[in-house]
Amino acid sequence: MPGHKLDVLDTIFHPRSVAVVGVTGANDRVGYNLLQSLIHAGYKGIIYPIHPRLENLLGLPVYRSLEEVPGPVDLAVIGVNQYATVEVVEQCGRKGVKGVICVAGGYREMGAEGKALEERLIAVARQYNVEVVGPNTLGLINTGVGLNATFYPIRLPRGRVSFVSQSGGVGLTILQKALDEGLGVNKWVGVGNRSTLELSDYLEYLARDDSTAVIGVFVEGTDDARRLVQVAGEVARRKPVVFYKVGRSDAVNSAALTHTGSMAGSYQMYRQILQQFGLLVVESALEMVAACNALAMAPIPRGNGVGVVTHTAGPSIVLLDEAGLRGGVFPPFTESTMERIRNIMGHNPAVVLKNPLDAAGRGMQAATFGRLAEAVLEDPLIDLLVAIYCLHLNWRCPTSEILAAQEKSGKPVVALYISSLEQVREERELLHSRGIPVYVTPEEAAWGVSALLHYARQRRGVNR
Amino acid sequence: MPGHKLDVLDTIFHPRSVAVVGVTGANDRVGYNLLQSLIHAGYKGIIYPIHPRLENLLGLPVYRSLEEVPGPVDLAVIGVNQYATVEVVEQCGRKGVKGVICVAGGYREMGAEGKALEERLIAVARQYNVEVVGPNTLGLINTGVGLNATFYPIRLPRGRVSFVSQSGGVGLTILQKALDEGLGVNKWVGVGNRSTLELSDYLEYLARDDSTAVIGVFVEGTDDARRLVQVAGEVARRKPVVFYKVGRSDAVNSAALTHTGSMAGSYQMYRQILQQFGLLVVESALEMVAACNALAMAPIPRGNGVGVVTHTAGPSIVLLDEAGLRGGVFPPFTESTMERIRNIMGHNPAVVLKNPLDAAGRGMQAATFGRLAEAVLEDPLIDLLVAIYCLHLNWRCPTSEILAAQEKSGKPVVALYISSLEQVREERELLHSRGIPVYVTPEEAAWGVSALLHYARQRRGVNR
Repeated sequence: MPGHKLDVLDTIFHPRSVAVVGVTGANDRVGYNLLQSLIHAGYKGIIYPIHPRLENLLGLPVYRSLEEVPGPVDLAVIGVNQYATVEVVEQCGRKGVKGVICVAGGYREMGAEGKALEERLIAVARQYNVEVVGPNTLGLINTGVGLNATFYPIRLPRGRVSFVSQSGGVGLTILQKALDEGLGVNKWVGVGNRSTLELSDYLEYLARDDSTAVIGVFVEGTDDARRLVQVAGEVARRKPVVFYKVGRSDAVNSAALTHTGSMAGSYQMYRQILQQFGLLVVESALEMVAACNALAMAPIPRGNGVGVVTHTAGPSIVLLDEAGLRGGVFPPFTESTMERIRNIMGHNPAVVLKNPLDAAGRGMQAATFGRLAEAVLEDPLIDLLVAIYCLHLNWRCPTSEILAAQEKSGKPVVALYISSLEQVREERELLHSRGIPVYVTPEEAAWGVSALLHYARQRRGVNR
Repeated sequence: MPGHKLDVLDTIFHPRSVAVVGVTGANDRVGYNLLQSLIHAGYKGIIYPIHPRLENLLGLPVYRSLEEVPGPVDLAVIGVNQYATVEVVEQCGRKGVKGVICVAGGYREMGAEGKALEERLIAVARQYNVEVVGPNTLGLINTGVGLNATFYPIRLPRGRVSFVSQSGGVGLTILQKALDEGLGVNKWVGVGNRSTLELSDYLEYLARDDSTAVIGVFVEGTDDARRLVQVAGEVARRKPVVFYKVGRSDAVNSAALTHTGSMAGSYQMYRQILQQFGLLVVESALEMVAACNALAMAPIPRGNGVGVVTHTAGPSIVLLDEAGLRGGVFPPFTESTMERIRNIMGHNPAVVLKNPLDAAGRGMQAATFGRLAEAVLEDPLIDLLVAIYCLHLNWRCPTSEILAAQEKSGKPVVALYISSLEQVREERELLHSRGIPVYVTPEEAAWGVSALLHYARQRRGVNR
């Protein structure tokens, strides 16, 4: 990728000033919400709302045109229709704006006429060396600088995961699910029609972005598939990339074509190539968030041996099943671990001592749970521990014990705390702050574990 | 099934009095929590706590033994160890108790010695005609009478879905997820080791239970597979049954054997047979809740034509993909529907009019969304509408419009409101109260839609 695109993307994600073109006073219009999103997220740079007649909006002075803006503009967010957008991009070019976000649809996804319009948009952008996010996009977010350059005024907790989504709506689904799961977000972009900036450009940028530790990608389809997968494969050597590719059923290709003007492409072909390049492929927005959560929180395990401590067998069986389908291995404990476990448990004819270790009623006592977790984490065959606990009104969660055991061993731990999402909030915040991802269902925990095991294999060169 | 079991199950789920054997004052012991759960859930019958020395507990007089209880006891919940449990069951028999819930583990899941103990338990129960829930169980719940006979003091909203789970922990996962999704629960039972009552017995009971509209079953494995599937197949003709069967990977069989003393069995064989009998098979606790939610809320569609109205294309593509894999069909609208849609949308060169109908920015206006929903619902080829909307700070959700359109057509509607679970609460309560299930991710919406289509095919006799 030319250094220019990387530089401009860096400016787009860290603009010192943002012009919002097409603001209005009506709060159910895109222009108003583009402006409100910037303010709502706490953007600290200079905001220049542009409107030919308005004087003030949301407490900010409004400028009649880009020309009248007194200082330089790094990024312009454009909320006018598809025809006017082309003209605004030209004004941006003349003003020396580095990057533009074009929200309007009505381009190549609409057939020949729209395609011609998009080509004009691209030509204008190229003429002035302006990079275009979109068109036909929700926009982008960088929580690191309080930049929400979308028309969805949401606030996200800051984190280490960045997302590149071909669909604004699916990207938004992922953000909302991340919110529910307490997963912090670093950067997010809806790529839309990819006129001057391709999926692979964003990926390459995020690969070099130190504040992004994990990248999640949602893809419908792209003409650029070959480069995308190659770039992603290279990126995955540096940091985990998680791919969600739609298109497993036949019903989808024609729908995707209309959406962003690209065929979804053969799913199996895509999947095989992605896997050849060592990339993790997931099958839902839920699995995407579960995988990114684990990869953002926990260290990559050194091997693929999973140990489980629980007080309830069923969820461990579901975990085994889901993770087993994805290559997870649950080795028997070594004899010395077994000896430790027997010492902790004492004689208890209601418990079978093995991996997964179901300590039944004894396991509900936090202290006992903690000692078992410690013993399992010290087993040389165990590279990762899953701690399963059902939140209870009267039994205390073994959170501090799990944290202590994790710290002592340095091995990754995944917590499956069966609970409603709301009730587990406090424990989750504590565990997340110390690098332990928390899940409330065994399937999601298995997806998280599987993501860690995938990148453990990747590091050992087993996936290729 | 002998009428006796049905009668006793009815008593167990509607006891006029419950004895809790093995209560203690320590709030981190099972006995205490069995009692607290009953009180916490608002059980209105008579509660008899039993302990040899305590006088009062949680505001209730304690009795020294079952013998000393002044009135008849319908149900005894037993929180003592596996050996003492057998003795208590005998006392229950002499007292004329109809059903017992045996929480303790340590029976046939523990090998020969435990198996012998369980046989003694069964022999004692048979001698006195007592039916046993468990042993090795979390217990059971009937929200209809405020009965929480488990040691997890949780409160559940009352609803029309009942669950039979071979695992307490997985059953609890399903309950917590149902809580998060605002799905009301009717009855719930963790069947444990199935000593005198089999999975199929509970199913048969719930089939005849008028307050249960939908049944969800989680199965690890059972010797009774043949009867279970036959019974479930019969039940599914009367009301929807949703099966979650663990065991897709090889790692699982030995684990399940230790848990409740049953092999998980060949997954593929199970799945094929379940499908032959017309049962809906799901692959996660998440899909279980999504499917039950739709089946409990919405009427069964008359055919399998799905129409979609959205303002964001990506989620509709994911929906198509997931539902397409499960047999969903998204027919083109008829010409007269297209004419109506064109009239509503006017000339808009940024929108392609087809199914799924992505109305883009115009679709964010509730009134327009509502008119489109109405037009699509009136299309003779459309049997079910999916309304996709991303919750927004400033745009009003088209909830009242969707409700009006649904009421006018009588056809089922599924709402995909992309949002955090918390933010959508109010809209969800309103939509749920009027028979429209609400989801926050496209995959879960697709699982709900697919469940409705499955039972639509079942009604038309297409599945067999």
